[in-house]
Amino acid sequence: MADDGERRGEGSSRDPEKEGIIYTKLKNGSCKLYELEKELPPIDAIRVRRAFIEQETGTTLENLGIFSIDIDRVVKRNCENMIGTVQVPVGIAGPVLVDGEYANGSYYLPLATTEGALVASVNRGCSAITQAGGAQVRILHDGMTRAPVFAADNVVHARHVADWVAIHHDELRAAAESTTSHGRMTGVTTYIAGTSVFVRIEFDTKDAMGMNMVTIASAKVAELIAQGTGARLIALSGNMCTDKKPAAINGIMGRGRSVVAGIALSHDSISQILKTDAKCLFEVNYRKNLVGSARAGSMGFNAHAANIVAAMFIACGQDAAHAIDGSTCITTVDLTESGVYVSVTLPSLPVGTVGGGTGLETQQECLRIIGVAGGGNPPGTNARKLAEIIGAGVLAGEISLLGALAAQHLARAHQQLGRG
Amino acid sequence: MADDGERRGEGSSRDPEKEGIIYTKLKNGSCKLYELEKELPPIDAIRVRRAFIEQETGTTLENLGIFSIDIDRVVKRNCENMIGTVQVPVGIAGPVLVDGEYANGSYYLPLATTEGALVASVNRGCSAITQAGGAQVRILHDGMTRAPVFAADNVVHARHVADWVAIHHDELRAAAESTTSHGRMTGVTTYIAGTSVFVRIEFDTKDAMGMNMVTIASAKVAELIAQGTGARLIALSGNMCTDKKPAAINGIMGRGRSVVAGIALSHDSISQILKTDAKCLFEVNYRKNLVGSARAGSMGFNAHAANIVAAMFIACGQDAAHAIDGSTCITTVDLTESGVYVSVTLPSLPVGTVGGGTGLETQQECLRIIGVAGGGNPPGTNARKLAEIIGAGVLAGEISLLGALAAQHLARAHQQLGRG
Amino acid sequence: MADDGERRGEGSSRDPEKEGIIYTKLKNGSCKLYELEKELPPIDAIRVRRAFIEQETGTTLENLGIFSIDIDRVVKRNCENMIGTVQVPVGIAGPVLVDGEYANGSYYLPLATTEGALVASVNRGCSAITQAGGAQVRILHDGMTRAPVFAADNVVHARHVADWVAIHHDELRAAAESTTSHGRMTGVTTYIAGTSVFVRIEFDTKDAMGMNMVTIASAKVAELIAQGTGARLIALSGNMCTDKKPAAINGIMGRGRSVVAGIALSHDSISQILKTDAKCLFEVNYRKNLVGSARAGSMGFNAHAANIVAAMFIACGQDAAHAIDGSTCITTVDLTESGVYVSVTLPSLPVGTVGGGTGLETQQECLRIIGVAGGGNPPGTNARKLAEIIGAGVLAGEISLLGALAAQHLARAHQQLGRG
Amino acid sequence: MADDGERRGEGSSRDPEKEGIIYTKLKNGSCKLYELEKELPPIDAIRVRRAFIEQETGTTLENLGIFSIDIDRVVKRNCENMIGTVQVPVGIAGPVLVDGEYANGSYYLPLATTEGALVASVNRGCSAITQAGGAQVRILHDGMTRAPVFAADNVVHARHVADWVAIHHDELRAAAESTTSHGRMTGVTTYIAGTSVFVRIEFDTKDAMGMNMVTIASAKVAELIAQGTGARLIALSGNMCTDKKPAAINGIMGRGRSVVAGIALSHDSISQILKTDAKCLFEVNYRKNLVGSARAGSMGFNAHAANIVAAMFIACGQDAAHAIDGSTCITTVDLTESGVYVSVTLPSLPVGTVGGGTGLETQQECLRIIGVAGGGNPPGTNARKLAEIIGAGVLAGEISLLGALAAQHLARAHQQLGRG
Repeated sequence: MADDGERRGEGSSRDPEKEGIIYTKLKNGSCKLYELEKELPPIDAIRVRRAFIEQETGTTLENLGIFSIDIDRVVKRNCENMIGTVQVPVGIAGPVLVDGEYANGSYYLPLATTEGALVASVNRGCSAITQAGGAQVRILHDGMTRAPVFAADNVVHARHVADWVAIHHDELRAAAESTTSHGRMTGVTTYIAGTSVFVRIEFDTKDAMGMNMVTIASAKVAELIAQGTGARLIALSGNMCTDKKPAAINGIMGRGRSVVAGIALSHDSISQILKTDAKCLFEVNYRKNLVGSARAGSMGFNAHAANIVAAMFIACGQDAAHAIDGSTCITTVDLTESGVYVSVTLPSLPVGTVGGGTGLETQQECLRIIGVAGGGNPPGTNARKLAEIIGAGVLAGEISLLGALAAQHLARAHQQLGRG
Repeated sequence: MADDGERRGEGSSRDPEKEGIIYTKLKNGSCKLYELEKELPPIDAIRVRRAFIEQETGTTLENLGIFSIDIDRVVKRNCENMIGTVQVPVGIAGPVLVDGEYANGSYYLPLATTEGALVASVNRGCSAITQAGGAQVRILHDGMTRAPVFAADNVVHARHVADWVAIHHDELRAAAESTTSHGRMTGVTTYIAGTSVFVRIEFDTKDAMGMNMVTIASAKVAELIAQGTGARLIALSGNMCTDKKPAAINGIMGRGRSVVAGIALSHDSISQILKTDAKCLFEVNYRKNLVGSARAGSMGFNAHAANIVAAMFIACGQDAAHAIDGSTCITTVDLTESGVYVSVTLPSLPVGTVGGGTGLETQQECLRIIGVAGGGNPPGTNARKLAEIIGAGVLAGEISLLGALAAQHLARAHQQLGRG
Repeated sequence: MADDGERRGEGSSRDPEKEGIIYTKLKNGSCKLYELEKELPPIDAIRVRRAFIEQETGTTLENLGIFSIDIDRVVKRNCENMIGTVQVPVGIAGPVLVDGEYANGSYYLPLATTEGALVASVNRGCSAITQAGGAQVRILHDGMTRAPVFAADNVVHARHVADWVAIHHDELRAAAESTTSHGRMTGVTTYIAGTSVFVRIEFDTKDAMGMNMVTIASAKVAELIAQGTGARLIALSGNMCTDKKPAAINGIMGRGRSVVAGIALSHDSISQILKTDAKCLFEVNYRKNLVGSARAGSMGFNAHAANIVAAMFIACGQDAAHAIDGSTCITTVDLTESGVYVSVTLPSLPVGTVGGGTGLETQQECLRIIGVAGGGNPPGTNARKLAEIIGAGVLAGEISLLGALAAQHLARAHQQLGRG
Repeated sequence: MADDGERRGEGSSRDPEKEGIIYTKLKNGSCKLYELEKELPPIDAIRVRRAFIEQETGTTLENLGIFSIDIDRVVKRNCENMIGTVQVPVGIAGPVLVDGEYANGSYYLPLATTEGALVASVNRGCSAITQAGGAQVRILHDGMTRAPVFAADNVVHARHVADWVAIHHDELRAAAESTTSHGRMTGVTTYIAGTSVFVRIEFDTKDAMGMNMVTIASAKVAELIAQGTGARLIALSGNMCTDKKPAAINGIMGRGRSVVAGIALSHDSISQILKTDAKCLFEVNYRKNLVGSARAGSMGFNAHAANIVAAMFIACGQDAAHAIDGSTCITTVDLTESGVYVSVTLPSLPVGTVGGGTGLETQQECLRIIGVAGGGNPPGTNARKLAEIIGAGVLAGEISLLGALAAQHLARAHQQLGRG
């Protein structure tokens, strides 16, 4: 198992002589690292590139070269200048019982993480949820957005652009939808800041996360707006989308799938599984997630929602930088007569089950564990199911950590697990 | 190469009979998934667990089982209930020339991502930076924080707790530092919100990211405060830390490594590499990253800093949920006589070169590419070097995307690369 | 002119004996301060109350008792337990030329303030604007909001409430509009956070600021929602309105009148009136209002918009606590070939020309100076005209202060004026 | 009582002929409105200016001209281009019992407002507080700030500026304090965003609100920094101060006087005075002030703190635009065994008892009601006392409105009071 080619058994032609020549060209700069795929089959290009990096940096990179995913597609769609893969451990939490509109039943959650205690913690939350009858989950809104920014001549012109967009809504929708066979434009809203005009276009992207779909559609829409109004298109993304930055607009208007999940925990559950009581669980959430976050000027009112979102995103081939969206979760613990009602509200989960990294074999397998690999029937149901299950996972994570904090176990748990 | 054991050649004892018995116990519930490591060597536990999940979910998970990392440590430190690994493609960008206090020279950047165009984009930014003489990078602040929250009886008591902490600063520091051989307590600040008292403890954690170190130290400090003041310890983390949530306090006070990076780009560079001009580059940043972010109620004033942070974090064994911290980057483009000066300011980069996921073989190899695997000499220098290089990477990413937007190439690039 | 009664010449019956008896009752607690109007004519009640406070606090309050406004209405509508009035100096800035949809012409701006240099500063801005051809102003959105909060049993119930509200939109609108002869319900949006459901109701309140109108209407709507869904009404205002707190939702969705104003300033204007140049003016705005505000975690991207809003609000009988809404203004300075284009965007200006403090004689006179006292024809036009003129005033204030900062005159101006 | 001069009995020389000449000059533009004080005694200048405005706008402004404050000082220090005053009704709430470090005893609160029900509401809160034994109030921090912004050549230079400031701290303090006989520099912190360097200078301004004092001192400090580092001073205020804009930095670091106030309310008090119960009071605060504000992306976690702050600021001659700072209050209601503990935390109250509008006769009388007119002994104690009392007032306002909402009385109260 000396190298990728052999391992994958893809019968790489592997021409050592040619590789040698190219390697020399890399060294003398007449061939660029990113040009290797033009000269060699991907599997060889990756090996040569890795060998070059090894020499340049004086390292041996044997593990990066051990992988099983189908490289041909990856180098075209997912990653340029590839030298191999990192292996991220996947742990399983659950099963967790989910009562959603798309997810209904018992699910195992794959979590890709190197943070000790995380899987165990989510697992404990899953037990609490399942024992309590299952997480109630609902999608509140669904729409991926892109917001090009235009420069108007002045504020009167800016207002004119907004009016023009409103009047030409149907025309813009037709143009937008002409760029996709799947998506549907579900909204367009215009925001003005002086001479800057932001047109936030929203799409139902079905089972795709949809950033690419909505970007292409937005390019078409933006072109028409520029032509129709004379406003200058400054950037296809004007940050009112808002992508990969925490933003109130996503919290308020939603972006991707907006999910809410909740569960009633009885006094018995709290005591047996979480080793604490309702009042204490409530107080941790109140002082930490609500008052503490407010005092910190935070946009996230939760304990560690991003941990679960990031781990499930990486496992399931989602865009890891979108874990940010999970971080703006609001977690509540209501005191009730029978115990507590715990909820998580995730206004912005950009997830998909097709496209992006979902096609990589290991990621695809994680999606299959959840039962959402590929497009749903009808379209969109798989992505929504995934969103609901992530919602349940975040709920499990919050319940568990709040419980652990309540019981003042956090530091001891970490000491035992010995994270750096 | 049918399974992990063979591939790793670890000479697993592999006892099919015993595995069969345990599998039956899993099925009938008398053994829990997380108890497998008590019964079997890790490599076998993982295989049995995966087989169980395969059957429970009706899937085959052959790729998840192909990995080369050392499982024994991983199952103890990084991931419970492990079933295998996901393979995340690693592309190489660079080299990028860096002029920092810890990083000085030319570096290749490993990026673990499935987002097509990202590596190519960062690569282009690296070229622009290197051609312009290298990224200037500086660490502005360095300190990992944890903020336990206490409940006081009333606001007078709350104020008393704050006073007590100030008076007993030396004693608290001694207690905190007694829990670690590496770290140094560099600050403690008290915040009050009614009856909730937050004590934000800051540590120089050297080459560790340090969340664990500061959590353990905070537990000791918190205990003393509770004893000394009678305030009740509610949670070891009171969200004024703030961990894994976007928060103004991190932007203002810093958390982890605070990094600033910048580069002067000449009119020629902008034209040749970015295919645009200074004025246009400036205007994209102005209307998108500044005005657009302000209008969106965003905490992030950048184009896609989180992309680079997430990709380098995953490659280098950092905590992926900390990519959130990267998302609060402020990117500026100043117009100058000779072209532009572009900068990125990252107030909160929690990174380390020891502990966490840094010890996994593939991640370790990525750290080695950068030259920062393990502890630095003197301690802390490797983590700071890593922070500087990530800063340079973010700068590259911002320059490239701003340039692409300026040239209205984004949609076309995406169309060609065909992300979902 | 020894007291209010004489001055107003209202022929107060003034019965010293009765006043003496009541005064004694105040002293022995058998009459409360707020009960005086039940026993005495308002003008006498105010005098007796003031005399009581004088004695209780050992002060003489002769100036508070000198006023000319019609007390009878004030004590019923505007202020309980009245003891007199404070006199707030009113300065005049302008005239400023305004090119709006409702305001068209030249306007003097009344500013009630005790901050030296403010009127002079706004006045200078008005000159710059007028000389440059007048401020372009547009209303972008118009709607006053109230958002009751309900408690649902769980997240499924919460989602049901949202659906119910959407389905019963027409019925809710009819109920809402049955409470007012003027207002029109223009929107209703539901937001969920766990078990909390917020229904944000928006009204076109015509010439009224409209908080009262929309509160009464919301009470009716809230009652129907509670009846129809079984959700418990927790509070008529659930803070997603959002009233008198800075909030992203107001910035994004608008509240009250959303106004944008702008002006092109030539190089000559900048030089002659502002004593600076385009590049410098731009740079102050860039580093201070954009980068500085971003770095401070601020919701306001302006220099001192709140100063003008507060001063005009107090002068014109608006609710002074709404000056907060002005503080979230975004100010931009674009570099253009002929100089700069300066704009201010005020997403949330809650103003009215009827109701509230607009009926007080001195405030009414200030509204008359602007030409917007009382209801407009058609209804709503006066309030919008006022909003446009305040927008122009804020623009004047921003231009002037940015110019002064650019010229580093601020400290010297303050030294001369000697504010505390 | 036809005009100001007569009423004030100041023996104005009043020369009708001269006034006529000047009026003509105003009409033909040879005299500017702001130049009147050069030609006439202030009292006459005001009258002539008002007459001019009356004619220009076709209005009669008789009430604006009725005032009793000493004009000579006002036109020099507080208001340019004066035409008179607006009369803002002042109601009295209280007495409220305060247990502070500076305020100790029973205080009446003057509130200048035109919002019906506000005084009554605060009054009810005062009763609840007093009956419960008095508001506990503490000052948590005290310091007025100004943050000049500099442009550095690049990020290395920016870091150098920060280092330079740290090294020259004593020298900068000496320079700062050379500009004032009262103030003391208590801190200086440097923040970097790319090439922008913000130096936040903090002062103990004793009894002055201190914006002017710290601005003058900052000018001196800024000059030294510019000289010592070569960085260009862009603006004396770089918005990291942050003045008159809601900003996280003020919440976290404090600005002006940081105040916390709280009170334990028994079940009996809640029932008798507020007509509700502990659980309901708690739930309103929880869902409205905490969850609702979080969901709205608000920086204010309170019901209507700004109302009380604005009303007391206007009454007491404070800067009304600073009411914004009150709006960022965090209000908490903790459930306790005996009832509830209610608190308000105001991180940023910029108040003073000397300077600004505090010297105007009516405002001075309001300060006297509280017992804080003029400088304290020792210096600073009066301003702090005022801050404590405002804190108690805000607490009263919050208790009352939360109670009213709990009892669903809000709309009915408004209907009766008939605000527009």
